[in-house]
Amino acid sequence: MALPTLGILGGGQLGRMTALAAARLGVPVRILSDRETGTGLPFAGVTVADWEAPAVLREWAAGCDAVTVESEWAPADQLLEAAPDVRLRPGVATLETVRHKGRQRQAYAAAGLPQPAHVLAATRDDARSAVERFGAAVLKQFEGSYDGYGNATCRTAADVDAAWDTLASSDGLLVESFVAFEAEAAVTVARRADGEAVVYPAVRSEHRDHRLHAATVPSGFSEATERAARRVALDTLRALDATGVATVELFVTGAGDVLVNEVAPRPHNTAHLTIDAHHTSQFENHARAVLGLPLGDPGLRVAAACMVNVLGQRDGMAAPDLDAALAIPGASIHLYGKTAVRPKRKMGHVTVTAADVEAARERAEAAAAAVRL
Amino acid sequence: MALPTLGILGGGQLGRMTALAAARLGVPVRILSDRETGTGLPFAGVTVADWEAPAVLREWAAGCDAVTVESEWAPADQLLEAAPDVRLRPGVATLETVRHKGRQRQAYAAAGLPQPAHVLAATRDDARSAVERFGAAVLKQFEGSYDGYGNATCRTAADVDAAWDTLASSDGLLVESFVAFEAEAAVTVARRADGEAVVYPAVRSEHRDHRLHAATVPSGFSEATERAARRVALDTLRALDATGVATVELFVTGAGDVLVNEVAPRPHNTAHLTIDAHHTSQFENHARAVLGLPLGDPGLRVAAACMVNVLGQRDGMAAPDLDAALAIPGASIHLYGKTAVRPKRKMGHVTVTAADVEAARERAEAAAAAVRL
Repeated sequence: MALPTLGILGGGQLGRMTALAAARLGVPVRILSDRETGTGLPFAGVTVADWEAPAVLREWAAGCDAVTVESEWAPADQLLEAAPDVRLRPGVATLETVRHKGRQRQAYAAAGLPQPAHVLAATRDDARSAVERFGAAVLKQFEGSYDGYGNATCRTAADVDAAWDTLASSDGLLVESFVAFEAEAAVTVARRADGEAVVYPAVRSEHRDHRLHAATVPSGFSEATERAARRVALDTLRALDATGVATVELFVTGAGDVLVNEVAPRPHNTAHLTIDAHHTSQFENHARAVLGLPLGDPGLRVAAACMVNVLGQRDGMAAPDLDAALAIPGASIHLYGKTAVRPKRKMGHVTVTAADVEAARERAEAAAAAVRL
Repeated sequence: MALPTLGILGGGQLGRMTALAAARLGVPVRILSDRETGTGLPFAGVTVADWEAPAVLREWAAGCDAVTVESEWAPADQLLEAAPDVRLRPGVATLETVRHKGRQRQAYAAAGLPQPAHVLAATRDDARSAVERFGAAVLKQFEGSYDGYGNATCRTAADVDAAWDTLASSDGLLVESFVAFEAEAAVTVARRADGEAVVYPAVRSEHRDHRLHAATVPSGFSEATERAARRVALDTLRALDATGVATVELFVTGAGDVLVNEVAPRPHNTAHLTIDAHHTSQFENHARAVLGLPLGDPGLRVAAACMVNVLGQRDGMAAPDLDAALAIPGASIHLYGKTAVRPKRKMGHVTVTAADVEAARERAEAAAAAVRL
């Protein structure tokens, strides 16, 4: 068997890190991006073109043995129309479900997965009565809501009216019972088209300002919660028939129960620490799963690790202080080559491995702060 | 400080792996290669041109904040002539010493480093009398001998005559007392221009057919030998004023003493396992040392590891069996993207990390064999 070529639709940091993992294996990579994304892609096999143009998609796909998408919003449907024989992983059915928060909830309900109480509200009255029933609820746009955008927490009819006017689309919006979670977990799974899968240990994730700030392993949850999180994540991927890696974000309640929050059908920020802390990184297992190769050990190879995101603090040109950041003992610095900084833009991340999560956390915070972007 | 650009003179696997490590840090890389080396370089910043042409060197170097060479035979002298202000690491003095096995021995003698008894034989008679004195000796070409080429083991005057006729150059050749070593060790050191350095744990290396076959850590040597190996390696780099990473290959005698065999002033095959087994890989520390950035922790992050080379078995096009190799538990496969196979050509390597060196060794051998190149 000659080495297969991996196609990646999307030229941001997730594609970049997947390409780096594939390059180590010797696997050739072709990236198709719709714009110079500013990740300063260091790779030769990058095409920047109109990625909705059938001729562009057809020619690009012809050189790929299997194709993945960097996000659920990449033009997978157009790709399949232009090149019906392409091995697209994840498939369009998975992407269609994930793109719509209402369809996600319906799929999880059909599979009997634990999740927050919710209503697909077609009308303002549906939304009002759901909020009344739940007491407190989060209203979410079905499509396009992320990182705190397109969401509103509501307790009163007046809240609902305001949210409905700004958020509802023609098919309404999603009303989810507000979950006063104790913690948030994320479990990444790599799954091949034949159903073979490996499940990573649960990560404890911490958001600030609706954005991921830090992720730590081991999660510190009880053994029962850890086990439940992994099982639910695997079941969720099966329910979606997802292929490649995907991450299931979970709420952990005070009682230690887990509820599916949402799924990212691609490499995920909460699993970036797998590069430094696990036997096989999410990016390598993504490449392996997409290409149908045997999957690698998802276990930890260190005692503990913490990842902290490096977010932009201002507008301007990037001038990271690698010198200061690398001076923090044990800091593994990952910068994405973005030349322009914007407030809250993900510019990179730092992972520190250590004997315990407290030490890892402290040094990861220090190193991420030292980059000064 | 904006991110510095790293220049690499040479486009083989050492440059490839250094570039992958630099890319992770976000450091831009420029590679200058004199030919399509067949490593299928996946990078954008590659110039293939006559790398002895002053105009080529000047233009290329102008875009680099610091430059390193992939081997001591890269045209460092021409580079400095064309671009005198370039920050070249290692420097030309180090490269000149290392290129000539006689000068290496003289430098180590001047620094009081332990090494085999030897004679820089200017004439056939010098060589004969040295072999007579040593009983058994290895005659080596001063320049260009490697992997068993340009060497001859001699015990008699007739052996010397035959070796002299084929090996001696105008300045003679090197006669080294034959060392009946117990084992071979290799110690890699990363050293900055200001002298700051970190020393990797000793690796036990095993050659077959004069080529590196396997490398394992921990070395299993006594604490005293391990300590001596690290100290001698650091002293050797100081004696050479080497910058970047360099590896000191050592003979370990039955009494546990170490003798300097030779030095590679660049990333080295015995330290490829640092990618998977150590906190900071030799390639990342090479980039950091060359750019003058803080050096990373050279310690092991796993209990044990073994690297086995994947050598070509035949002539033809490469068709590695990644599927079979990745099915070996814990195998981390590194292929260099070379499209043409030749017997004994280094096509890649496999590293396995495990609880002990025996388990790591067994699985690394199996995975390397499974690649079938």
